[in-house]
Amino acid sequence: MSDVSWSEVEKEIARAAFEKAYEREIAVLIEEVRTQVTSLAELEDLWRLNDFLSARRHDVDGKYDYRYAVLVFVFSRLVKEGWLQIEELDGLEQTKLSKIAALSRM
Amino acid sequence: MSDVSWSEVEKEIARAAFEKAYEREIAVLIEEVRTQVTSLAELEDLWRLNDFLSARRHDVDGKYDYRYAVLVFVFSRLVKEGWLQIEELDGLEQTKLSKIAALSRM
Repeated sequence: MSDVSWSEVEKEIARAAFEKAYEREIAVLIEEVRTQVTSLAELEDLWRLNDFLSARRHDVDGKYDYRYAVLVFVFSRLVKEGWLQIEELDGLEQTKLSKIAALSRM
Repeated sequence: MSDVSWSEVEKEIARAAFEKAYEREIAVLIEEVRTQVTSLAELEDLWRLNDFLSARRHDVDGKYDYRYAVLVFVFSRLVKEGWLQIEELDGLEQTKLSKIAALSRM
């Protein structure tokens, strides 16, 4: 299975792309939290922030799964959500790239 | 039981003191969150904030229990923690005040 077989070069590209997406998403998340905090006025706002963080934590923890067996799916999601451009995966096998591109449009 | 029997005047005093303590604690909590957010740098900081909010929510939800049967205990805790001064309960029956003061020193 080409999905689970990654060359050393592919692994380097994958790792760099993965970390780039991760850093982008975290930076945006931190900005979102800062914005929410500027308008904190009452207890309900705090609990809303708490719920927001719990949901994002669940989401981020599940999404950034760096196992080669699932990485094509992880990348397709990151592309779909805009954290990664498909071009940033240039250098991966064409079969992987096609699959990622196709899945990202679903 | 004097603990569960509150005159109308006592109820007014109790309600005002309860709300004052609540507002103080929430204001401090919001300040704490603002401070934590200024130093947000990485994902772990966000999850630490999430844990902090979850713990405070549990604590605050349990503490502010406005039932006359438990109000003496609630007030003793608020005094002990510094959210309320015992003098702000002036006007309550002496038996209640003594009990609150004694419990708050435990």
